[in-house]
Amino acid sequence: MSQHSHLDKAYQYIQSKDLHNIVCQIFIKLGIPKDDAAKAATVLVTADLRGVESHGVSNYMEVTYVPGLKSNLINPTPNIKIIRESASTALVDGDRGLGMVVGQWAMKLAIKKAKKYGTGFVTVSNSRHFGMAGYYSMMALSEDMIGLSMTNATPHVLPTFGAEPMMGTNPISLAVPANKECPFVLDMATSTVAVGKILIANRLGLPIPYGWAADLSGEITTDSNIARESKKLMPLGGTKELGGHKGYGLATMVDILCGVLSGSVISSNIVRNGPVGHFFGAFNIESFRDTQEFKNDMDYLLKSLKNTPPIENEDRVYYAGLIEEEVYQQRLITGIPLANKVVETLRNFAIELDISSTI
Amino acid sequence: MSQHSHLDKAYQYIQSKDLHNIVCQIFIKLGIPKDDAAKAATVLVTADLRGVESHGVSNYMEVTYVPGLKSNLINPTPNIKIIRESASTALVDGDRGLGMVVGQWAMKLAIKKAKKYGTGFVTVSNSRHFGMAGYYSMMALSEDMIGLSMTNATPHVLPTFGAEPMMGTNPISLAVPANKECPFVLDMATSTVAVGKILIANRLGLPIPYGWAADLSGEITTDSNIARESKKLMPLGGTKELGGHKGYGLATMVDILCGVLSGSVISSNIVRNGPVGHFFGAFNIESFRDTQEFKNDMDYLLKSLKNTPPIENEDRVYYAGLIEEEVYQQRLITGIPLANKVVETLRNFAIELDISSTI
Repeated sequence: MSQHSHLDKAYQYIQSKDLHNIVCQIFIKLGIPKDDAAKAATVLVTADLRGVESHGVSNYMEVTYVPGLKSNLINPTPNIKIIRESASTALVDGDRGLGMVVGQWAMKLAIKKAKKYGTGFVTVSNSRHFGMAGYYSMMALSEDMIGLSMTNATPHVLPTFGAEPMMGTNPISLAVPANKECPFVLDMATSTVAVGKILIANRLGLPIPYGWAADLSGEITTDSNIARESKKLMPLGGTKELGGHKGYGLATMVDILCGVLSGSVISSNIVRNGPVGHFFGAFNIESFRDTQEFKNDMDYLLKSLKNTPPIENEDRVYYAGLIEEEVYQQRLITGIPLANKVVETLRNFAIELDISSTI
Repeated sequence: MSQHSHLDKAYQYIQSKDLHNIVCQIFIKLGIPKDDAAKAATVLVTADLRGVESHGVSNYMEVTYVPGLKSNLINPTPNIKIIRESASTALVDGDRGLGMVVGQWAMKLAIKKAKKYGTGFVTVSNSRHFGMAGYYSMMALSEDMIGLSMTNATPHVLPTFGAEPMMGTNPISLAVPANKECPFVLDMATSTVAVGKILIANRLGLPIPYGWAADLSGEITTDSNIARESKKLMPLGGTKELGGHKGYGLATMVDILCGVLSGSVISSNIVRNGPVGHFFGAFNIESFRDTQEFKNDMDYLLKSLKNTPPIENEDRVYYAGLIEEEVYQQRLITGIPLANKVVETLRNFAIELDISSTI
């Protein structure tokens, strides 16, 4: 969870409302209309609330969104539009908009189609980095739908047997509502880990596990200095022997649905703040079976997973989304632990952009 | 690939036509109508032709399909029907039919819906073991669609931190057409490996890699005797540190779409020849973008993967489905290498069922 606490004892708790406010103000000052700015800030703050720091305010605000908007590589006022559509499908042009704005627009469209036709699938071209994939899949939950979300990303992941990165971390998220249990929310990169985990190990002077990353020539390494240099990640599974070709296959699947189906760009051609493709889906549960019965059966499945006996030295068994929900509930009260450095960066943006800082 | 050749030098090549014929005759003698028998045999023989021996004739004919039909746990003449439906979705009852028959019926329905509404998704209850997941996803290829196929299965896979198997190998298959390149066909269990690979290592007296399986208490083991005994598999990724929670999450996703969405049964309650659930999907490419342009872009992606430089000591980089297609083309000519023991079993069935053997 809170990786900052291992890394950097110098952090402080910021209330989510205050964090949302300053991020929103920064976006507005960079030309994004108020409603869109609020929506985009919500995606980032939700990631922080759920303990997904890798996709929260700290990681991308400074290096991606702010410089992207300043350089106009990200369009603050995109004309998002449907290029082609059928009853249950659409191709959407993101017009270089912030991924968090384009993503919500497109996922809403998928949900609208699912309400009418049972399912809705939207592939998106010409968008930008959209933050946490799970935000969009989770938009389906309150509609009693199953949500799906994917994006392709800059190339960091090696194909099995390959020496050069041809895939991004290309995440997949699926969110499924339950009744009394908290929803199942899978939100996973198709690489073993993200680059961030290697940087953390390296800063702590630790080696990395065999299966996370490779050296410049593409051979697996456990040396975090070498991995930090190469930034070459292994697909989920690691080596072929341990199923790495499956992680590579899943990454390719994401690249096809986000990049090829949208006519956008494939992972190996993606550059920072350049175009990316997304893919969103919604399944209306009632179109398959009675929603209440489905949710009760989800409770049964999720409870059976929570209650299954753990191995020695482990307290409990989780399912995807359970820890994140627990962290979310906690951070709504305690606030979000942010490294002092991140707080300082945000305050500097506030000064630079003439905003009265709320943190 | 041909794992039999490592295991058992005593094998012979059988032409696919002859293998199809005997399997078809066996199914007919066990009460399956001629057309359905032929369809079911095609699924099994296609697996053998593609080098997916784990789901070919040898592995399930003797231990699953024949005893299932004899004991009437599998219904040879199911009344497969739609229980609920919307424009792009359906819930289908398999009426205890052979999975290969029910699966093709349901996938055809998904394709039909996709032709009309852009996408089609069908969840199936009360079916039986359906063989190779990739057969059904590949049915979409000739329709210029992307095909999706999943099934849940008997519990052999541990949840992350769990001591007891709660998931099946729960495979995912996605098939995507290209133009000149052979199609992308991902067909993967969400465990690191299947039980079959552990049995092979054990017969050869070899240890197994760290990450394949656990002992009876749920702790990872590299002893193939212990793993053979426990039959407890690790999810794709292995330990939590190496992303095993992602494989576990994917297995749960499959269980939800196949088991919960269909109101069928979840993995942890599945028994051999008992009910299982499937999930099928079809995406009509033309509903998203021009099909020919899409296929050309697929060629570009797939060629870029084939042509990316390999690491030292590897000849080439593959993509999902490429090796299988090459083996398929070869075996159409050479025939399928079948262990003598498997040939003998089939011949014994022929004698028992009063069929003139074609092998």
